Amino acid sequence: MAGNGKTIFNLILSGNIPSHKIYEDEFVYAFLDINPLSRGHTLVIPKEESRTMDSLSEDSAAELGRVLPKICRAIMKITGANDYNLVQNNGENAGQTVPHLHFHIIPKYPQSNHSFIWEPKPIDHSDATELSRAILEELG
Amino acid sequence: MAGNGKTIFNLILSGNIPSHKIYEDEFVYAFLDINPLSRGHTLVIPKEESRTMDSLSEDSAAELGRVLPKICRAIMKITGANDYNLVQNNGENAGQTVPHLHFHIIPKYPQSNHSFIWEPKPIDHSDATELSRAILEELG
Repeated sequence: MAGNGKTIFNLILSGNIPSHKIYEDEFVYAFLDINPLSRGHTLVIPKEESRTMDSLSEDSAAELGRVLPKICRAIMKITGANDYNLVQNNGENAGQTVPHLHFHIIPKYPQSNHSFIWEPKPIDHSDATELSRAILEELG
Repeated sequence: MAGNGKTIFNLILSGNIPSHKIYEDEFVYAFLDINPLSRGHTLVIPKEESRTMDSLSEDSAAELGRVLPKICRAIMKITGANDYNLVQNNGENAGQTVPHLHFHIIPKYPQSNHSFIWEPKPIDHSDATELSRAILEELG
């Protein structure tokens, strides 16, 4: 999954395409989404090339996680938003458009109309018992 | 924001309420959502009590990030899903229901009907230049 060739994010990381940068360190780059759902909509990406979360190295994933709290704090402070969504889509069928892993941080204002279509069903406990055991064993 | 008292997740962490556990380490606990959007829908939570991402400690956030790749890999392998969404809602207006930070990992199958209402608007580059400078400075 890793190393899917150059995406537009590589051109942003190399400075060949300009971006509204808000944060950068050795592992992570963050910039405003050019097609925002709301003011302050930010993309946070690892510098490591990985299409999806499952193929990212643990060290990059840890560094990506480490900076999320302070980036969220700064966006909320500067925009004045109180609520926000983090969204990270993996695979075209899940809505991923650029094949380089990215977290969306999307401020939610009272007038924001972005939302998730959330139609849960009660769990099948018998199936869930088997499923959770299998995943637990896979991770063991 | 931290320390919002006991939530149902505290009772799950303490074992007073049973859960379909799929992973646990010193910092992180993961279990199947009892009201899933799709088979294998998982919640990944830090053991640290924090309502939202912005109030989580950097160390917990790093450990939470570190385990996401392997948890995603295991869920995809065992369920057979190829695509998936990570969603983390902060604040009631953003759809957060339990006031203890949690990542949803939601497998997306061909027949899955969960989706995000995504209506972007082109960025205002003049405003974005000011906004990104202010956030960059806040993070500097």
